[in-house]
Amino acid sequence: MPLSLASLPKRLFVGRPLQSDRLGETLLPKKIALPVFASDALSSVAYAPEEILLVLGIGGVSLLHLSWYLAAGVAVLMLVVVASYRQNVHAYPSGGGDYEVATTNLGRSAGLIVASALLVDYVLTVAVSASAGVANLASAFRSLHGHEVAVTVSIVVVITLLNLRGVRESGTAFAIPTYGFMVGVGVMLAVGLTKIATGDHLQAESAGYHIQATRDFTGLALMFLVLRAFASGCAALTGVEAISNGVPAFKKPKSRNAATTLALLGGLAVTMFLGIVALAVLTDVHVIDPATGGKLLGTPPGYQQRTVIAQIGATVFGAGSVPFIYLQFVTALILVLAANTAFNGFPVLGSILARDGYLPRQLHTRGDRLAYSNGIVLLAAFACLLIVAFKASPTRLIQLYIVGVFVSFTLSQSGMIRHWNRHLRSEADPAQRRHMKRSRVINSIGAVITGTVLIIVLFTKFTHGAYIVVIAMPIVYATMVAIQRHYNTVRRELVPDPDEDTTLPSRIHAVVLVSKIHKATLQAVNYARATRPSTLVAVTVQVDPQDARALQLEWDRRRIPVSLVVLDSPFREVTSSVVDYVRDVRRESPRDVVIVYVPEYVVGHWWEHLLHNQSALRLKTRLRFQPGVMVTSVPWQLRSSRSRAEREELIYAVAGDTRKGPETRRRPTGPGGPPADSKGAA
Amino acid sequence: MPLSLASLPKRLFVGRPLQSDRLGETLLPKKIALPVFASDALSSVAYAPEEILLVLGIGGVSLLHLSWYLAAGVAVLMLVVVASYRQNVHAYPSGGGDYEVATTNLGRSAGLIVASALLVDYVLTVAVSASAGVANLASAFRSLHGHEVAVTVSIVVVITLLNLRGVRESGTAFAIPTYGFMVGVGVMLAVGLTKIATGDHLQAESAGYHIQATRDFTGLALMFLVLRAFASGCAALTGVEAISNGVPAFKKPKSRNAATTLALLGGLAVTMFLGIVALAVLTDVHVIDPATGGKLLGTPPGYQQRTVIAQIGATVFGAGSVPFIYLQFVTALILVLAANTAFNGFPVLGSILARDGYLPRQLHTRGDRLAYSNGIVLLAAFACLLIVAFKASPTRLIQLYIVGVFVSFTLSQSGMIRHWNRHLRSEADPAQRRHMKRSRVINSIGAVITGTVLIIVLFTKFTHGAYIVVIAMPIVYATMVAIQRHYNTVRRELVPDPDEDTTLPSRIHAVVLVSKIHKATLQAVNYARATRPSTLVAVTVQVDPQDARALQLEWDRRRIPVSLVVLDSPFREVTSSVVDYVRDVRRESPRDVVIVYVPEYVVGHWWEHLLHNQSALRLKTRLRFQPGVMVTSVPWQLRSSRSRAEREELIYAVAGDTRKGPETRRRPTGPGGPPADSKGAA
Repeated sequence: MPLSLASLPKRLFVGRPLQSDRLGETLLPKKIALPVFASDALSSVAYAPEEILLVLGIGGVSLLHLSWYLAAGVAVLMLVVVASYRQNVHAYPSGGGDYEVATTNLGRSAGLIVASALLVDYVLTVAVSASAGVANLASAFRSLHGHEVAVTVSIVVVITLLNLRGVRESGTAFAIPTYGFMVGVGVMLAVGLTKIATGDHLQAESAGYHIQATRDFTGLALMFLVLRAFASGCAALTGVEAISNGVPAFKKPKSRNAATTLALLGGLAVTMFLGIVALAVLTDVHVIDPATGGKLLGTPPGYQQRTVIAQIGATVFGAGSVPFIYLQFVTALILVLAANTAFNGFPVLGSILARDGYLPRQLHTRGDRLAYSNGIVLLAAFACLLIVAFKASPTRLIQLYIVGVFVSFTLSQSGMIRHWNRHLRSEADPAQRRHMKRSRVINSIGAVITGTVLIIVLFTKFTHGAYIVVIAMPIVYATMVAIQRHYNTVRRELVPDPDEDTTLPSRIHAVVLVSKIHKATLQAVNYARATRPSTLVAVTVQVDPQDARALQLEWDRRRIPVSLVVLDSPFREVTSSVVDYVRDVRRESPRDVVIVYVPEYVVGHWWEHLLHNQSALRLKTRLRFQPGVMVTSVPWQLRSSRSRAEREELIYAVAGDTRKGPETRRRPTGPGGPPADSKGAA
Repeated sequence: MPLSLASLPKRLFVGRPLQSDRLGETLLPKKIALPVFASDALSSVAYAPEEILLVLGIGGVSLLHLSWYLAAGVAVLMLVVVASYRQNVHAYPSGGGDYEVATTNLGRSAGLIVASALLVDYVLTVAVSASAGVANLASAFRSLHGHEVAVTVSIVVVITLLNLRGVRESGTAFAIPTYGFMVGVGVMLAVGLTKIATGDHLQAESAGYHIQATRDFTGLALMFLVLRAFASGCAALTGVEAISNGVPAFKKPKSRNAATTLALLGGLAVTMFLGIVALAVLTDVHVIDPATGGKLLGTPPGYQQRTVIAQIGATVFGAGSVPFIYLQFVTALILVLAANTAFNGFPVLGSILARDGYLPRQLHTRGDRLAYSNGIVLLAAFACLLIVAFKASPTRLIQLYIVGVFVSFTLSQSGMIRHWNRHLRSEADPAQRRHMKRSRVINSIGAVITGTVLIIVLFTKFTHGAYIVVIAMPIVYATMVAIQRHYNTVRRELVPDPDEDTTLPSRIHAVVLVSKIHKATLQAVNYARATRPSTLVAVTVQVDPQDARALQLEWDRRRIPVSLVVLDSPFREVTSSVVDYVRDVRRESPRDVVIVYVPEYVVGHWWEHLLHNQSALRLKTRLRFQPGVMVTSVPWQLRSSRSRAEREELIYAVAGDTRKGPETRRRPTGPGGPPADSKGAA
């Protein structure tokens, strides 16, 4: 089946895990795979350097020189993680991601911990990326200042709507902002560093403002602050794992190409990250986080701090210049794109978890807009909650962010050690064994280092917001375990005995509900009569004696050949009266079955639906609890519904071309013949 | 049927309009009717005087002396309105209220305008009363300052939950705060005025602070400001109409007793209102509304303005004294009670409007917690929206408040003029005619004056917030008209022809949906077989070929005597595959009917419900649009549902004692016999 470029990302992000066997033909060359998978990882260099400067700034200007060391540390960490994930890519080309690696090697609980961490992290990816995008936009278009929350929430809402409508980006839509961002940052770094090398004394707009330390940091306190700055800088690592989830989408040799792309991504991210930190330090960018009580001295009244990347851009290109505006625009764009990737990743993970019984089963059903929507709306709602609660401040949101990422990193790498241990036991070839041992060393280093960083992150950021994630993750975990337990209970309860009783109910008592005599009621009576039940009555609940008398007269006048039972209910309790009646019928003949026919209206719009069928709905809900009672809806299509049905026909007919393809066919089997002729066991 | 005092207010507010014929035995003596109906009207004297002072304060201290005249004006207006409604009480003892008066005399549109005004006003009653209650609490317990929004919303939430749970206040619960408030204010007025009369120079805590006028007001601007102050003071009139809605609840002679109570209420309200204004002016209470840019000069740092009633109380009793705390507490309490009355009034009006087809029909169904809940939740949601939007400031909310009240007053009084004109035409007795003419004069004065006030209110408050109501009312109006139009269209569409076709469908094709073989599926197959349809097939959608093969093998192994049709669907589109299949069956034999049997799980908790039946729900929704297709739910009660069903049994059994009483009986009629024996027309 040929695939247009436009539907490719949808396939990649939504389709792959469920249809991997059919995706053979739609593979990505590296130059498209890079932007598709890199937006999340690359976009984080837009805010990670700033976080280092902000935390160090708490200790005053004198600490800023430590940025060099911290940046180097983050770069090394990045290279370690990239090297580790290159092993994952070779070992797990199926693209199952960290959840699969952890579950396979460390067991169910570890897998669920990873899953909890990732679900929480998707929410934070949306919140952090969108907030950072808006912060960068506001650095170029200053009138946005003060409206960050509204703008960020609006952007999330737009992304949500686009995803709900099923409008997905084409490969180019991914490529343009990603390459645009690389070019923008690359040119900025080249021009800036060249100018400085040739003796230009570039100074950021904030270079002249002094950062006032909140207090003196020495000894342990200083170490703690530096570790906290390092932990914040680790935000640069988010999104690195994306490629390891996407191996099946690469051209052959898949693993090799994916690993190369991963290395490329790592190199690019490290270069951009180091370059931005370098320029920030060299041009004396001074930024503070007002939330920590930091103060910038000497600022003019009304001074509004720009993002670090904006300050560098303004210094190198000149504030308001075209390249500067371009830089801010592509920075915002790649950040929004990064937020959007979470909207693709969340349902995929949800679907895998649903398949394994940890989330509601309907999340597993693909191609179903309704089910898919639940996940999207849930993700957007939580992200907006965070954005509002933390006032769209990337700095405050990042305090929560990377706990989940590093939980996932650590467990995945630990899983990989187990993986190699297992395979080493069964492998005889010395060359292979050498190779495996090398991988095991890399993954071990990865596990130890990411684990250490996780502890640093938890330790330094716990009180600044990380505790929220530490609370949220177990809640998600417990929910998933509870859901699985429920499904298991139900499954066990439903297993039929080998000699399951197949005695048929002896008689069918049909009850048609009637409120007024109109076409819908008469249709229901006719249909019920056509089923030839053992007994058939029409039942009405008397709310107003006068109405009931009129109904009875009309009933007799029309000679409807079914007896009408009038249930008295002075308190308008329609539902209870009917339920009581049905229960009495069942009590008199417990081996029989009661079918309640409920005439219903079908309308074209949801708001029209609110105006009808509410009593029917309540009644059906109550009757469900009665054993041996079936409820049959007899729909009457009102005119407004017909146009909608026709529209739907059309939509499904058009969609059917691509969705069903030649595979859709009916396959009647079993003792009967084809459907329309197959006789039941009557 | 004897009624406990505890269930009395429920009867009054919820039960009456629908069951007025049965309420004969449960009548109120005046001394209980007064607190029951007066909380809304009396509570408004807690904020109305303050509003006058606030608006006048915009023009500076020098204008405050005008309070005397404005208070007198409001008092006269109050007496006029009370006199007018005494005529309503005599003419419409049915308690239909302004909606009935306007509809009967001025037609449908006028009635709907009144209804729109009242619905909007109920929302504002909740918002204003709760906010004012919290403002008074915060005047006694200063630590609440700055948390007004949260506290107010919490109170509304608590009221909502109490109403949702059906916990209603007893008569005493009404009487205590109302009489407590009367006593508190009465004692305060007596002590305060006595002290002043005996030469005490009482000065409020704010007496020393100078109000800075935002600008000089002269000529037209001054007149406008004074009118605006008057319009704000008219907030004292809200709730006066409540007694005219409650006439049927009074002891005989109903109208006479209601009219007396109304006069009593008017006298009390006027006395309290005038007394509070007098003490405020005499003790030089200086308050400002920060929203208007007003400034209070000379205040100490951290000065937090108290409500007027709190300032008077503090002056008379001493701040922090027991009587002062008592006063603030009962003031807050009666205001919360006033908010609660809207929770009773809103569903009653909604029910009447639903009966007339202007609101969704289910609002008319009484005793149905679900339907009733919708109205309560809607009311609370809108009220909270307003509270948050206007930061729980009574002053800002009051700008929106009294438009609706005076629309209702004016149309009701105009309707009364028509009423007397009509009756005068048919009345011959000269004494009666004289009496009617006198009433007509009173109502005419009422109509003219309330109409004038309405124009003043609209004119002076339009830009301060009243425009919101002017937008909201037509929206509510248009919605109600649209709903009625929809119901009418449907009714016309459903009228059966006199010779409505009663040909029965020729055959029944039964389709049982199967996903796995378990108890629920087997039960559905058995039930479907028991109905002996013309044809019967089991249908499954193949998502995974392996699963489908396993299902087929198990099906054959169990020798289930129904043929299994496997529908292929590589894209997991269960719903579409089944709908297509059913449509094909119908297409082959259009005169037949298809019944789709859907096995469903019944669980005990709503969250468990989320884990099941979602595909079934979607399928049922789609199938509704197919003519000639019925959907039968075959519920399987899981264990967790049984305990719930038993609990419900119990609840309904207990509730049934009082609800059903001896009247509930079954009355089988028509050509058939009793239900279990009546044979269908098979």
